[in-house]
Amino acid sequence: MKTEWIAVDWGTSHLRAWAMDGGAVLDSARSEQGMARLAKGEFQAALLALIESWLDDAPVDVIACGMVGARQGWVEAPYTAVPSAPVPDTPIRVPGTDPRIRAFVVPGLKQNAPPDVMRGEETQIAGFLDSHPNWDGVICLPGTHTKWAQVSANEVVSFRTFMTGELFDLLRGHSVLQHSVGDGWDTAAFAEAVEDTLSKPEQLAARLFGLRAADLLHAQDAGTARARLSGLLIGAELAASRPYWLGQQIAIIGAEELSAVYAQALQPQGAFVETADATQSTLAGLTRARNLTRQTA
Amino acid sequence: MKTEWIAVDWGTSHLRAWAMDGGAVLDSARSEQGMARLAKGEFQAALLALIESWLDDAPVDVIACGMVGARQGWVEAPYTAVPSAPVPDTPIRVPGTDPRIRAFVVPGLKQNAPPDVMRGEETQIAGFLDSHPNWDGVICLPGTHTKWAQVSANEVVSFRTFMTGELFDLLRGHSVLQHSVGDGWDTAAFAEAVEDTLSKPEQLAARLFGLRAADLLHAQDAGTARARLSGLLIGAELAASRPYWLGQQIAIIGAEELSAVYAQALQPQGAFVETADATQSTLAGLTRARNLTRQTA
Repeated sequence: MKTEWIAVDWGTSHLRAWAMDGGAVLDSARSEQGMARLAKGEFQAALLALIESWLDDAPVDVIACGMVGARQGWVEAPYTAVPSAPVPDTPIRVPGTDPRIRAFVVPGLKQNAPPDVMRGEETQIAGFLDSHPNWDGVICLPGTHTKWAQVSANEVVSFRTFMTGELFDLLRGHSVLQHSVGDGWDTAAFAEAVEDTLSKPEQLAARLFGLRAADLLHAQDAGTARARLSGLLIGAELAASRPYWLGQQIAIIGAEELSAVYAQALQPQGAFVETADATQSTLAGLTRARNLTRQTA
Repeated sequence: MKTEWIAVDWGTSHLRAWAMDGGAVLDSARSEQGMARLAKGEFQAALLALIESWLDDAPVDVIACGMVGARQGWVEAPYTAVPSAPVPDTPIRVPGTDPRIRAFVVPGLKQNAPPDVMRGEETQIAGFLDSHPNWDGVICLPGTHTKWAQVSANEVVSFRTFMTGELFDLLRGHSVLQHSVGDGWDTAAFAEAVEDTLSKPEQLAARLFGLRAADLLHAQDAGTARARLSGLLIGAELAASRPYWLGQQIAIIGAEELSAVYAQALQPQGAFVETADATQSTLAGLTRARNLTRQTA
């Protein structure tokens, strides 16, 4: 079947592309050529290396979202200020591309006060709303930098970013805790740690080194330590985002395993949580962005 | 003048030695041969390389404190459980040393619940108490892993460790904040950030990424960001250690610049703070440990 258009999710550390026919996936490809690895002039070559076999002479639309629209990206796609529809306008055209493609980048969202930014998650939110029209509630997008977005009347009203995933990776891989935090998991220890930071957020700073000391003095299991570290950090995120989720309808859009961990943290708080697949949301959002492109083409 | 004994401060990342005559320093030397760089059999050679010129045929006492007493160190010096005098007993003799030295390692302290450990700071506390007999209050020892110790009747009653320094270094050097946190300082921004986390500790997780976004959206100064990051993390530490310092006499033992930062954070809270020199405290504590060695020799 012929590739009608190409969907691209281009983040800091990854590049994923899908050959599309309308909303259906014909083929997919991925590489590690994320934005952080590429200099200004290297984006098109990194993409063509992945999609070359899908191209022929007639130009095909390429719709990309993510950090590819940052200042250091392929083309800067200036942020749209919230409140706003997640993907309100036609994406930004990349100038001077190979004649076989017409490339567009979806702009991110910004919030002036408190200052915050997102690139990529707005497309997933748009995709989620496409199948949940007039959905009101809060969307959690867990990842390296987890986003919480308050959504009403098909607009993102406000959002906050949490460095929870990055903090976990730094503490687990590069701090003194690396000697005590290993593989494995302990569901009860995770739940207890979430509850501990949620109820006593001021104690977070005192808990972290305790993971090392509990190993030295009491030979605490490395998987228990991993669950506890995750619980302490997600608990701190939930303490800070409580005004977002308390009493709200919550949707989690993310990788399956991580979404389940967030759902496990939220459920004891009496929260009603549904989950949505991250890739499906991205593709639905890019399809929506592509339709905007065609309306104005 | 003849070296009567040798004082050694041997941490994870550094090795410092002093040629001593009683409590007086005759000479000093340092290297980067910290515990983390050395395999089990390499400690003596690393030390001798530094102190060889101070030695002659008659054996001289070497008194060391710090991570050198860890399981992976020169000799394991098992922790003493609190409550305890900071240096209660004669240090642990290192077996099988070069005949020109008789080497001893000061044991650290441990607390079973909540689990915590220290190695090195107990010696500084002993040195501080040597010149402040019967001092009651709380001692803060800022550093990579800041310690807070409650001291009464010449004993350490309890203590807690905070990874504040290590968290700051990881976030500043290895997280997305590295692009927005630079050199320089902003005293008002620091004070504001401390106050912010002290009064709203549950908001800490929401503040960190804000340092990146404030740069992207409002071109926040990199020195202001540095002061804010430091203030947020020290504020979180003060929120967790409040039961230690509230209404107490406080002594800070640490590097001059870092001690001044902690004093600046504590003073608006109405705390009475005195500071003591870290090296002098270490040497006074090692002198005390050496006297214990001689009593039992």
